[in-house]
Amino acid sequence: MCQLLGLNCATPTDASFSFTGFCQRGGATDHHADGWGIAFFEGRGLRLFVDHQCAAESRMAEFLRSYPLKSRNIIAHVRKATIGDVRLENAHPFSRELWGRHWVFAHNGDLKDYQPRLHSQFQPVGTTDSERAFCWLMQELAKSHAGLPSVEELTLTLRELLPQVRRFGSINFLLSNGDALWAHCSTKLHYLVRQHPFTQATLMDQDWTVNFAELNQPGDRAAVIVTTPLTRNEQWTAFEPDELKVFVDGLPVEVA
Amino acid sequence: MCQLLGLNCATPTDASFSFTGFCQRGGATDHHADGWGIAFFEGRGLRLFVDHQCAAESRMAEFLRSYPLKSRNIIAHVRKATIGDVRLENAHPFSRELWGRHWVFAHNGDLKDYQPRLHSQFQPVGTTDSERAFCWLMQELAKSHAGLPSVEELTLTLRELLPQVRRFGSINFLLSNGDALWAHCSTKLHYLVRQHPFTQATLMDQDWTVNFAELNQPGDRAAVIVTTPLTRNEQWTAFEPDELKVFVDGLPVEVA
Repeated sequence: MCQLLGLNCATPTDASFSFTGFCQRGGATDHHADGWGIAFFEGRGLRLFVDHQCAAESRMAEFLRSYPLKSRNIIAHVRKATIGDVRLENAHPFSRELWGRHWVFAHNGDLKDYQPRLHSQFQPVGTTDSERAFCWLMQELAKSHAGLPSVEELTLTLRELLPQVRRFGSINFLLSNGDALWAHCSTKLHYLVRQHPFTQATLMDQDWTVNFAELNQPGDRAAVIVTTPLTRNEQWTAFEPDELKVFVDGLPVEVA
Repeated sequence: MCQLLGLNCATPTDASFSFTGFCQRGGATDHHADGWGIAFFEGRGLRLFVDHQCAAESRMAEFLRSYPLKSRNIIAHVRKATIGDVRLENAHPFSRELWGRHWVFAHNGDLKDYQPRLHSQFQPVGTTDSERAFCWLMQELAKSHAGLPSVEELTLTLRELLPQVRRFGSINFLLSNGDALWAHCSTKLHYLVRQHPFTQATLMDQDWTVNFAELNQPGDRAAVIVTTPLTRNEQWTAFEPDELKVFVDGLPVEVA
């Protein structure tokens, strides 16, 4: 199994604090040492870093922890290989282009004997169940909409599609196109919203406390979505099983 | 206009020497300061770094110059914006997936009033003529072959397609899927092959001399393709106008 981290923010936000704690789970405080990756949207642009080394010891991860890349939508992953070898092409997040936008996907869970019919343009490069699920979702989204629909419409389509994946096993995932961040929980996922009045937080996995009141402006707001809570003194909300949430501008959006 | 750098190698090769000289053209010794990018294939896997900052001053580029990423196919680009703003989504190289493989493309040249009919899955994310040309090439390759064809067949298809792009202007490009590297010259492109017996070389753009005999084994071989020669004491071969070459395992391959 793997661990997921997502940030969806009202203003471009530096993920160093969360990513630092998260990286410790890639081989130091936890056993997800079979690769890692992180994707940062900047407008429509995308920076995607993947590595098949252990996040806790990777020089690239170390560089990124110290390099202030600000983004409104960030997805990170540390991998514990189950299906698919430890190779670069099996490292999450995966990305594809659809409707002239980049889409990024990371998965935690196991889909057993999952061989969806991939009959269109989205074909896996690697050998993971996760990339197959991403390709299938992209294929079905492309069939459902002629061009980029609203966040609400996309959420409804994803809700319709997900039962077809879930029957093969567990699919906790994060998905973003730079406008919104979708988070789906099969078994385990938590989130919180950091906003005014900001408080201080201490990482679970490393001795680091940050006072967000000193670092943020009143208009800043960030939703942080993660497999298991990253900090010890903040209130994390657990997702319900089979719950899909969509975050825009740092807040969960209700879609009827 | 922009500058291109490509490496196609028989064995995984560290591009630090060439990339260091090349980066100097991104704002220091030359005026291509509107972004840069570099793509490294590792098997089927891909690491793609893009930045809209100046390569000569980018901390990310500095990190990569010092970080020994070894690859058999590398494509780099420094950008002087002509068509399309200075934004992350307009930074080369671009990438797309086709037939379950990553494809990477970087372009130097100007295509005037170039609005090809993009009626299939490949749509530009940014606003450059370059990404439009890449999407059109991917679309036409996808229409020409049901699955991944041989390097020779792909070369023949590209040769057939290129006149349709060339009539809009100049298209010097590098393209790779990790197996081979295609290089097309409209106006300016040079290459050389470094192989046994290795000699020493000095960068044009920076005071750095390397003795490749000390760094390489007899089986190593690298083709280096670049807009203007990178070193002062090696023999560079200029491409002919409208010439398409394909490199495999560090050598140009003749395709009849």
